[in-house]
Formats: sequence, C-alpha cells, structure tokens
Amino acid sequence: MEKLEKLYEGKAKKLYATDDPDILWVDYMNQATAGNGEKKAQIEGKGSLNNHITSVIFDLLKARGVDSHFVEKLSDTEQLVRKMDMFPLEIIMRNTAAGSFAKRYGVEEGTPLKKPILEFCVKSDALGDPFITEDGVVALGLASEEEMAEISKQARAVNAALLDIFSKIDVKLVDFKIEEGKTSDGAILLADEITPDTCRLWDTKDESGKIEHLDKDLFRRDLGNIIPAYEEIYGRLKSLAESEGIAVDD
Amino acid sequence: MEKLEKLYEGKAKKLYATDDPDILWVDYMNQATAGNGEKKAQIEGKGSLNNHITSVIFDLLKARGVDSHFVEKLSDTEQLVRKMDMFPLEIIMRNTAAGSFAKRYGVEEGTPLKKPILEFCVKSDALGDPFITEDGVVALGLASEEEMAEISKQARAVNAALLDIFSKIDVKLVDFKIEEGKTSDGAILLADEITPDTCRLWDTKDESGKIEHLDKDLFRRDLGNIIPAYEEIYGRLKSLAESEGIAVDD
Repeated sequence: MEKLEKLYEGKAKKLYATDDPDILWVDYMNQATAGNGEKKAQIEGKGSLNNHITSVIFDLLKARGVDSHFVEKLSDTEQLVRKMDMFPLEIIMRNTAAGSFAKRYGVEEGTPLKKPILEFCVKSDALGDPFITEDGVVALGLASEEEMAEISKQARAVNAALLDIFSKIDVKLVDFKIEEGKTSDGAILLADEITPDTCRLWDTKDESGKIEHLDKDLFRRDLGNIIPAYEEIYGRLKSLAESEGIAVDD
Repeated sequence: MEKLEKLYEGKAKKLYATDDPDILWVDYMNQATAGNGEKKAQIEGKGSLNNHITSVIFDLLKARGVDSHFVEKLSDTEQLVRKMDMFPLEIIMRNTAAGSFAKRYGVEEGTPLKKPILEFCVKSDALGDPFITEDGVVALGLASEEEMAEISKQARAVNAALLDIFSKIDVKLVDFKIEEGKTSDGAILLADEITPDTCRLWDTKDESGKIEHLDKDLFRRDLGNIIPAYEEIYGRLKSLAESEGIAVDD
C-alpha cells in the first residue's frame, strides 16, 4: 500500500490517500486539544497510545459483532482504515452524568442515568458543535431518516459492546463520542477513533471514593499527565484482548 | 365556581385555586417578556387578546379531535382550566427554520424543514431552559418512556391541527411551544396556552416578500406594536371558528 497526498488534518489525526481509492492512511498526532481547540498541547507518546488503543478496541468490538472502518495497524502511530463519506455529526452516548451533560442540567457528576442517552451534535467548529435532535438532522438534510435509524442502532450496539469490554477491565464507561460514515458501496459503519480522548473512563479499581480519571479530562481539567492513564488503559485492553485470543501487535 | 388563593404567578399568567380541586382559575396578564425575562414590558390589551386567542384555538383544536386542559372563558382576561401536574418541559415544534434554531445551525430564517422538528427543553430559568433529548428526559426522571411517547404523539397531533387552522386563515405556522401535564386521573393533556406569545406566525396574505410577523417577535426584535398583530390573528381565528359553527363569546 502506498501513502499518497494528505487529504485532511484534524486536531488529533492526519489522513492520507493511498493507491487504493477505498483505503485511507491515518497518522495519529501527539496534539491534545480541549474546549473546541481553545486549549492545545503537544504530549509526547499520545499519538502512539491512541493508535494502539483504538486498534485493539476496534478488534475487541469486531469480536462482539460490531464492525468498523478499521483495517489494520501499520506502525506505532499509523493505521489503515476504509475511506468513508462521513456524516457531519458527533454521536454521543452517555451512561452516567458527567461533563457538559452534568453542567447543562445541574446534575452532580457521577449520577447514574436511568437509561443510556444518545445525543447528536452537528460537527461545526464555527457553530460550536451545536446539539441537534434526530428530527433536526433529517430536516437539515445531514442524514436521512433511515440512515439516522441505522446510526442510532449502531451507537447503541457500540455502547453495549464497550460497556462489556470496559467492565471486564474494571473501568466505568461514563460516556463517549463516535462518528459514523458511509463506504463507497453505501454501508454505514463506525469510523474515527475510540480512545481516552473520546471516552470518559473512570477507574473502578480505585476505592478511594474519589473519581479516578483515565481519560482526557486529566488534560481538560489540569488534573495530571494523561500518559500514565492512557498506558494503564492500553495495558488492560491488551490483556483482555490476549485473553480472548486476539493478537495484539505492539 | 369560587376563586381562591393564588397558586402561581408566571411571566404572563396568574393561577388561582378554586373550590373544585380539579379546576384552576387563570388570569392573563399584560406583561410581555423575552430573552428568559431579560426584556420586560406592560402592554395594554395583551392579556385580554391572549385569553381570547387561546380560548378560540383550544375550541378549534377540540373540533379537530385534540383535547386540552381548557374548560371555559370566564371574562376578558380570565378562564377556567383543568388542574394539571405539569411536566417541566418546553415542547417545541418547528415547521420552518427561525429564531434560535436558525441561529444555532447557521440556517437562514424562513428555510423550509424537510420534516417537522420536535424539540424539548427543561423548563428552568436557573439553567436557561436547556435543550434535552427524549432519552435525557427519561434518564433524568422528568417523564417516563411511555409518557414521552404520548407527549410526542400529542405534540405532532397539535402541529397537524394547528397547521390546518392557520393555513385556513392565511398564516404560516413557523414554530410553536406547548406544555403538557397530567390530570389527577393520570390523563396526559395539552395545557398552558397557544397564542402569538408562544407561536411564530407569519402573514401569508402579505406579498411583499418580506416576513410579516404576527407574533411576539415584534416585541422581541423591536419591530413594532404587537397589539394590531394579535388583533389581526384573533379576528381571523374568530371568523374561522364562526364558519365552523363554534360560538365565540367576545
């Protein structure tokens, strides 16, 4: 596979074309951002960790019947994925009140939710990623009614599978953000990444009663270095994958 | 029926107990507010017009099979309604992009929507009436799954009936806000008011190409006196009601 011209540079990844029109080459960067890009830092080792973490999560999801755009990990910071026509949506699933949700409704962070909550935001830095209803997505032509039904179904399936994965490594999956897209043959698939950048992960091994963040909130809230936390998540995921007979290539 | 102690004073109405525990006495005030109460004015005649308008709309809805809490108009500014245990929700239906929706998604006001959009906000001045998903309402215990299904069904039925009513009087129903509650015997019903305070109504008789507001945007945006617009809406609704054999008592 040949790496061709850069197609896109986001906040955490660069995407390149390849000689296969259906495959993209992804390079995970060390950049961390928060608050719609207002806070920014270079954190040595982050790109590599996220590349490893999302690769093993996509494999663990696949073993649970949840498909994604992931093709294979190429190197420390690189992977191949299927090229997707992305829906301009942030797809958020919440199992426990935290972050903007807790603030928005005046609910204490950590409050359990009676059911998982699926939220959508329009991906638009200019508009500040505004919250949108499923009706709104369809009404604005960002996805069709049938596509939204499929996206919602997949988001709930991803949540069920991730809850299983993280509970097995003593981590509470508080909430997460995914993105979905369409392949050239029209299949809707999970895309982007699933990492501690995009999930809230709390350590349930910690019994101090205090929330032990193993995710980007360490950076967002200046609570400490993210690297040991991301390493901890990767170590536990790797052990789980190996216990399930999934080969993990460091 | 006897008017007893005041139970609640909102931005536009006062509610009183009566000697019937299932009935409330409503007094429509002349106060107009906008921007979560930041802008405020006394507008002579508004209370009376809204009392008349919502009464005739509730009658027109009833003739279309849509029930509400409305019992009867008592006087110029007063009416009796069924006592409801209110859901703490603003229930918003949109047929055309306008107001906060247009701003939020960077869409031009007046853009038609491919389907009506149902939105919910938590009624909370302290939190700024935040947007919430149907999942979120259930997860926070503000209504049950079954109640939300019924509320959504009723909101869509109210929209269909109001679209019929307003199209017959040459008014475009852009969007509106309703509230719903539960009676003492557990029935979910449309409550609160339906007036130019709570609906965006554009005159389709006007052929200048410019939007002719017949609603509270005149006040919100300092576009002119609301009274002639509210009188115009009432006059047209009254003619429609009379043409349908509904008695209108001025």
